[in-house]
Amino acid sequence: MKTIAILATMDTKHIEVSYARNLIETLGHAVRVIDIGVSGKPAEGAGAIEIQAGEVLHAAGLSLETLTRMDKGARIETMASAAAIAVAECFKRKDFDAILSLGGIQNTIMAATAMRALPVGVPKLILSTMASGKRLFGPFVGAKDIVVMHSVADISGINRITRSVIANAVGAIVGMAMYGNRRIEASDALVIGATMLGVTSGGVSAATARLQDAGYETISFHATGVGGRAMEHFIADKVIGASLDLTLHEISSEVFGGYCAGANDRLLAAAAAGIPQVVAPGAVDILSCSTDFGVDSFPSNWRARKSIAHNASLYHVKLSAAEIAQVATVIAERLNQATGPLTVLIPKRGFCEAGAPGRPLHDAAIDAAFIDTLRRGLKRSIRWVEADLNISQPEFGELAAAELQAYLQAQPVALAMDSA
Amino acid sequence: MKTIAILATMDTKHIEVSYARNLIETLGHAVRVIDIGVSGKPAEGAGAIEIQAGEVLHAAGLSLETLTRMDKGARIETMASAAAIAVAECFKRKDFDAILSLGGIQNTIMAATAMRALPVGVPKLILSTMASGKRLFGPFVGAKDIVVMHSVADISGINRITRSVIANAVGAIVGMAMYGNRRIEASDALVIGATMLGVTSGGVSAATARLQDAGYETISFHATGVGGRAMEHFIADKVIGASLDLTLHEISSEVFGGYCAGANDRLLAAAAAGIPQVVAPGAVDILSCSTDFGVDSFPSNWRARKSIAHNASLYHVKLSAAEIAQVATVIAERLNQATGPLTVLIPKRGFCEAGAPGRPLHDAAIDAAFIDTLRRGLKRSIRWVEADLNISQPEFGELAAAELQAYLQAQPVALAMDSA
Repeated sequence: MKTIAILATMDTKHIEVSYARNLIETLGHAVRVIDIGVSGKPAEGAGAIEIQAGEVLHAAGLSLETLTRMDKGARIETMASAAAIAVAECFKRKDFDAILSLGGIQNTIMAATAMRALPVGVPKLILSTMASGKRLFGPFVGAKDIVVMHSVADISGINRITRSVIANAVGAIVGMAMYGNRRIEASDALVIGATMLGVTSGGVSAATARLQDAGYETISFHATGVGGRAMEHFIADKVIGASLDLTLHEISSEVFGGYCAGANDRLLAAAAAGIPQVVAPGAVDILSCSTDFGVDSFPSNWRARKSIAHNASLYHVKLSAAEIAQVATVIAERLNQATGPLTVLIPKRGFCEAGAPGRPLHDAAIDAAFIDTLRRGLKRSIRWVEADLNISQPEFGELAAAELQAYLQAQPVALAMDSA
Repeated sequence: MKTIAILATMDTKHIEVSYARNLIETLGHAVRVIDIGVSGKPAEGAGAIEIQAGEVLHAAGLSLETLTRMDKGARIETMASAAAIAVAECFKRKDFDAILSLGGIQNTIMAATAMRALPVGVPKLILSTMASGKRLFGPFVGAKDIVVMHSVADISGINRITRSVIANAVGAIVGMAMYGNRRIEASDALVIGATMLGVTSGGVSAATARLQDAGYETISFHATGVGGRAMEHFIADKVIGASLDLTLHEISSEVFGGYCAGANDRLLAAAAAGIPQVVAPGAVDILSCSTDFGVDSFPSNWRARKSIAHNASLYHVKLSAAEIAQVATVIAERLNQATGPLTVLIPKRGFCEAGAPGRPLHDAAIDAAFIDTLRRGLKRSIRWVEADLNISQPEFGELAAAELQAYLQAQPVALAMDSA
């Protein structure tokens, strides 16, 4: 028997929650309803509530009295933060195996905030009226594995659409609890984290292939503003023990915005953990800008810059020399905090595929501004290797892998093949 | 035993598909792999493929030879369209109970296109590297109940993250196949479809509550560019037999764009089906514009117009008299095609909550331009009722419900309470 937590606003969605509870219990599993309603009390006849809204708030040192004095926006924000704490506590107490939520915009915002506090692997599903159209995934899933299901119709009352989508949501969360639910934990076997984008993947894939051949487990993250954030989490959680951080595009995005902004403070988890790092400036020379978000999301003078259309909606726009130097300064400052073995590997023939000589984003002066600023900013004790290669060349990846292997062989680590 | 179809590019993702297949088969269920790889042949040692890429293309009258002569973009588009046909055919033959896909951008685009061809209720899950950050839900889910799961890490090779997310994806799809999987079908019981937005919900909720009290099953759709599309589908499929279309905001969005664009040809399914309709111009007087997509997605002179911030990122901007008259012309032209009973109900005190006298979006001249143009454009035989109410007033909803009930009582229909 599994226990499914249901996060719901029991002042408005008690009928739909009762329906879901009944389905889950009929399958032989237990339910714990966690009330995140913000009106101060559940609806009349709301049915069983295992954790009252007041208890959720209590986990954050708050009370219903405090909440009901706030305006609606503040109530939702407050309840969301409290739910994140309460849900994480419940999870640590092993109060549930999997967590489900259903509702509209308010429920979705609060449930997503709470679920993002849970580790990857714990089954989490949001059934939402909002999960469609021009809504963005980011606010729902963050850097986690939250499963999102579009409800098609408004989740209000039981009709043939809500019956169907709630039954599938229940089936999915029960199935995950029964057959999935694998935690991602630190182990004796070394795990190598790598960062990539399409424009660096030629090199990164060659590096991870070589490391896998040598018996290491590798995990690649897309440096889109999300993947780098996930990698930093897993380094902090000691799941990842070595960093092949060949795509620092998110640092340029952190400084100058664009489509891949969102992963801030990159490089700092590895620095703090003292793990071996091989770092290369993959795609630091470009900003990703999407026409989905209007040309006012592009650098104002972007038409005067080198740029290419990466796909139907995404442009890669070259940074200026002054901008890339600013990025180099940030990177140097962070790498100087590293406490473990570190190689900085410079692909002198371009930081992204289209940055190679003869390609549209090539600009030797801009790349040189990065290299010079970074080198001047870095401690002299940090190993510096320049390669006459483009970052997306397999040979560059081979070199990066060899650098990392040298560090790993110098310290005692278990290989992935030793573990289950 | 259930059968799970796996849609995957077997030239690149065969290792991950084998892993998923093994999990599903170990649980006692069957797998049918449908290859949507576009390189011309599966990887060496790709394992069992129940439906080859060539067979998928064949369903659309194409061949691998044709495909491999195309450039990459065209291959993906072609395979996506062919997969939609092939998957729908397999489903009709009852070849599978539920469908799963896993992969990166190409797989996701093709799988989403194919899955959108399946009815609501059929379990469908996409495990995707893309389902995060600034990606939009729309291209994944359309107006369907596709479940989307963020893979956190790149889906390439088996490591502790891909093992965890694939196990949960498998658990979810198997659970849905076993415990969900409820089709939404036409029945003898009448189902009423309603359209709503926050700014019209006061009236719409009162209407649906009254109709539910009278024993009817009602389903509400959010008129966000998705819900209206879903309602039109369900009318065409004869699931919905009466239309309470009180929120025509998507028609203004169809004509002038904005956040809620995407549901085109509204009102035409009901016209063609000849079902009873009560129609009101809910939120036709505003465009929804999101700062997420930049101010260049707003009408160019929007600062000179009446507008309000609906939430942190969404603005409601009043149309001009000329614009709203254009919307009225489109609506009149479509309503004139109605072949069933039809009432047009005009809330004279404003088409959205903030359009009421004394509220920020009130503009009597603009609203009058709509009313006059619509009335002049409509056939005289169409019933026209003006109410001295705002659309979001419960009394307006009561009136709308009474109009629809009058039509329903005049024709023999079964009530929801008669059915299971």
